[in-house]
Amino acid sequence: MAAIDETHDAGLTSWVASANVADTDFPIQNLPFGRFRPVAPGGPGVALRVGVAIGDEVLDLSLAASAPGWPAEVQPLLAQLASGDLNGFMGLGPAPHRALRLALSRALRAGSPMQAALSGALRPQSQAGMALPCEIGDYTDFYTGIHHATTVGTLFRPDQPLLPNYKWVPIGYHGRSSSIVVSGTPVRRPRGQVKGPDHAEPILSPSRRLDHELELGAVIGRGNALGTSIGLDEAEDHLFGIVLLNDWSARDVQAWEYQPLGPFLAKNFASTVSPWIVTMEALAPFRAPFVRAAEDPRPLPYLDAAGNRAAGQLDLVLEVQIQTAAMRAAGLPPHRLSTSRTLQAAYWTFAQLVTHHSVGGCNLRSGDLLGSGTLSGPAPDQGGSILELSAGGKRALELPGGETRTFLQDGDTVILRAWGERPGARRIGLGSCSGTVLAAA
Amino acid sequence: MAAIDETHDAGLTSWVASANVADTDFPIQNLPFGRFRPVAPGGPGVALRVGVAIGDEVLDLSLAASAPGWPAEVQPLLAQLASGDLNGFMGLGPAPHRALRLALSRALRAGSPMQAALSGALRPQSQAGMALPCEIGDYTDFYTGIHHATTVGTLFRPDQPLLPNYKWVPIGYHGRSSSIVVSGTPVRRPRGQVKGPDHAEPILSPSRRLDHELELGAVIGRGNALGTSIGLDEAEDHLFGIVLLNDWSARDVQAWEYQPLGPFLAKNFASTVSPWIVTMEALAPFRAPFVRAAEDPRPLPYLDAAGNRAAGQLDLVLEVQIQTAAMRAAGLPPHRLSTSRTLQAAYWTFAQLVTHHSVGGCNLRSGDLLGSGTLSGPAPDQGGSILELSAGGKRALELPGGETRTFLQDGDTVILRAWGERPGARRIGLGSCSGTVLAAA
Repeated sequence: MAAIDETHDAGLTSWVASANVADTDFPIQNLPFGRFRPVAPGGPGVALRVGVAIGDEVLDLSLAASAPGWPAEVQPLLAQLASGDLNGFMGLGPAPHRALRLALSRALRAGSPMQAALSGALRPQSQAGMALPCEIGDYTDFYTGIHHATTVGTLFRPDQPLLPNYKWVPIGYHGRSSSIVVSGTPVRRPRGQVKGPDHAEPILSPSRRLDHELELGAVIGRGNALGTSIGLDEAEDHLFGIVLLNDWSARDVQAWEYQPLGPFLAKNFASTVSPWIVTMEALAPFRAPFVRAAEDPRPLPYLDAAGNRAAGQLDLVLEVQIQTAAMRAAGLPPHRLSTSRTLQAAYWTFAQLVTHHSVGGCNLRSGDLLGSGTLSGPAPDQGGSILELSAGGKRALELPGGETRTFLQDGDTVILRAWGERPGARRIGLGSCSGTVLAAA
Repeated sequence: MAAIDETHDAGLTSWVASANVADTDFPIQNLPFGRFRPVAPGGPGVALRVGVAIGDEVLDLSLAASAPGWPAEVQPLLAQLASGDLNGFMGLGPAPHRALRLALSRALRAGSPMQAALSGALRPQSQAGMALPCEIGDYTDFYTGIHHATTVGTLFRPDQPLLPNYKWVPIGYHGRSSSIVVSGTPVRRPRGQVKGPDHAEPILSPSRRLDHELELGAVIGRGNALGTSIGLDEAEDHLFGIVLLNDWSARDVQAWEYQPLGPFLAKNFASTVSPWIVTMEALAPFRAPFVRAAEDPRPLPYLDAAGNRAAGQLDLVLEVQIQTAAMRAAGLPPHRLSTSRTLQAAYWTFAQLVTHHSVGGCNLRSGDLLGSGTLSGPAPDQGGSILELSAGGKRALELPGGETRTFLQDGDTVILRAWGERPGARRIGLGSCSGTVLAAA
């Protein structure tokens, strides 16, 4: 678990004024990494640059790297990032990450002698075309949301909602990398095979049960070699940071296709991530002891090291909002669909997921994405998907302006948010992860 | 379906003598692509080169490209391949592939005026360190082997071996890209959670039911954009070629982890592919009409176009061999475990898999790998895995030298082979795909 140090001091302010606003997701205590294309003067063909979000601005590291005043030890790191190689930097491990974080914090702090040299390296976030935050080689989606697993299990298998392996095995499956898109990318409603319970044969149809899933994604920093595994005590050192993840799902396609090998086309038409990777160092204040009910089995030793219990669970507030086309036209703001907390939602920590993923020798690579699974809270109105909130489509959700929803309609925008807030700590956020549903092709 | 042309003429011979031997996998009618590191003078750090197998030799395209005499239209293609960019070439689509194939066939033909210029671009395959044949972004494994699905389904679900969706949906799931290795790479026995039927709790243990799976892998050539789909009539144009694929499986891990989201650690510790991609053009003579039993349902229209039926099914002979450590020590050759034919084994064609994979808008990229699933024949001794051949580990297989096997032991080498043979056509092969089991870490 990353240590609390001077970069987390709640009293720090930045010479970038928008970073000092109370509700910004990106105060100087955050400093997340992302990749962008400068909108002007270049176009889509321009190479990606690495940036750090600060308030409403992006510090363009391709420009900032050459400013005078950086400590010697971070100059090679900045040179690597200035070349656009975020994955390479992520793969270096925690010590260089901490060193650069400290240097960035000091350089952006109010009163920094580097202000004059760096102010020309800022650009408004509104003028940065954000891209996927890193190269994602492999994407694995887990199923750590125990309330989600229980509620959905009840819909699919009323006799056995939570299967016997759930509290032993961090259940996960491989997802599709090619269709991971950055927040803001429209999501086309998929077609697929669906079969009604009263029909003898399936048909090909646009999905009528399109849904979102509220997840966090952990981004791997340092990887491991094929045939080796990552012990739980070291697992945190292999995590670079966290993004929001919307695991869009076509429930009708899923119900027909998912046996015996799991979800496939129901999930691979698009997965949306937020553009900023909030580092494990930035999240250090937002951790809490690992909580497990007395009746739950003690995990097998490889998932139960003392170091992991000390590291604890992420403690973030999560939120899903919706804005329909009619709401947009009427000037209505996004409407909150649900809220939950990671601490109550996830049965396994990301450290446990890293260890489990590699226990058989599978190699993780820098940039690989591990989805948490849907992080629903324990109450019925805390579902992280419409499937849960609408009780499988049986109970319509009421929206501002008089609309109702069971599942998503074309034109609906779904927005995920998450943030950490704790007494004594500066609030930080993950930004937002949004996507608007387009009609099927 | 690729057309039969002069490159398939069974009478063609090459000025490379080893290409004219009757049982070579790589006569001049084949011309598969792969990537290699020259063992001398460079070492492992040397950049990958693209080569074409011919007999026992590799034509090193980084050297061959600059030979005089190539037709003007293929010179840019050779320049791209000389730079090592096989994925880019694969993504160009069938017309450039056909053009280069014709040029290579003429250049390597007995009597070619290019013989003198190209002979310096040959190197023995035994001195080429073969690498993965291309960059594999995403790997999807299907389940088209209907006899495999039926036999394994019987072991896992005696009441319902073949689920109701099997003859409608080409069942597939996402696999792990990072752990795909090239033939010859040792495979470490994985550890994982296993739970015996008589035990209340699982344990972490090296897998005791390690198995192979005999598959073919289709390599995607031209991809499609996210949100678009590939119609069945065009699907063949998106296939570059075929490799052998051993989908190593830990059956005990799989049985405990696979519900509800499918196989995960049971499969992701290693998957082995053969080093040479045999192109769809080379395979053109080895096709047969698509066969489906009268009682099978007619596929939904998107999977049932007339063009697809015309394209037909691959008709290749498949074989699995084993050589144990004791057999090696005793000088005993590899022993055939099973043989089958794609034509009898696969319920769906690769063209149907491409169309199904993209019907919801998922994007395929050049180099993506689609596994066929285990291609077992209809007879019990035609199983493409030991799980099938040993009836779930209940019936030990007898090997030369007096050994028996239920599942793989450390030191066992599994070798997959496949070839096409038809009256009037020159036999071609896919080479071999082998891996030796190492003891668990």
